[in-house]
Amino acid sequence: MSFATRRELKAGYDDVLAKMPEALKAEGFGILTEIDIKDTLKKKIGVDFRRYKILGACNPPLAHQALTTETEIGLMLPCNVIVYETDDGHTVVSAIDPTTTMASVGNPKLTELAQTVRDKLARVLASLE
Amino acid sequence: MSFATRRELKAGYDDVLAKMPEALKAEGFGILTEIDIKDTLKKKIGVDFRRYKILGACNPPLAHQALTTETEIGLMLPCNVIVYETDDGHTVVSAIDPTTTMASVGNPKLTELAQTVRDKLARVLASLE
Repeated sequence: MSFATRRELKAGYDDVLAKMPEALKAEGFGILTEIDIKDTLKKKIGVDFRRYKILGACNPPLAHQALTTETEIGLMLPCNVIVYETDDGHTVVSAIDPTTTMASVGNPKLTELAQTVRDKLARVLASLE
Repeated sequence: MSFATRRELKAGYDDVLAKMPEALKAEGFGILTEIDIKDTLKKKIGVDFRRYKILGACNPPLAHQALTTETEIGLMLPCNVIVYETDDGHTVVSAIDPTTTMASVGNPKLTELAQTVRDKLARVLASLE
């Protein structure tokens, strides 16, 4: 899984979700968007899916640096953190590795920023019980 | 700009933004999230930035296929379409090329889906005046 930093936790889905705002805040991220995949797929096309949310996490000073380095980088913002329930009732939390996605931009300054963000998101995941 | 399909239009920012929901809908995309970058940066860190929005576009049947092919692909959903004002008052609309970002996943089924989505988003952009 080269494009993600990933943890599987024994804690329940709701418990992990509840901890995400504080865990992200500790590294300077706010949650700008939240998509409930299970609800969206049910409502739009009537299919059942596991409990699954996509959180759009944004560290404003770093986002501002990225946007002034490369105007189009909004295409890769905010940084997605997904939380979903596994078949055996565990919870997976996974964060995008922006060094992988932003590599296609080919801008060294951006790569440095992406490493900082990746390390921050890894610390967020490591902080979860 | 290998990671994006991009158009620069002479139309104003508000006019282009107003057309996006219908243009996206014609290819099966709804807008799940909307981030006003200018407002967010002003509010969170007090800096001025150009008018700039990130629209999170989602085609539910294709998103469902992607998620059943690769559970973690929510890290790259929804597909971002950015709209921003240039220094000379033009408007840029740019859509993520998911074939570039999803290449890092290394799943051939996903690559095929990503091509379908890229082509759809290119048609959305081509439809704008």
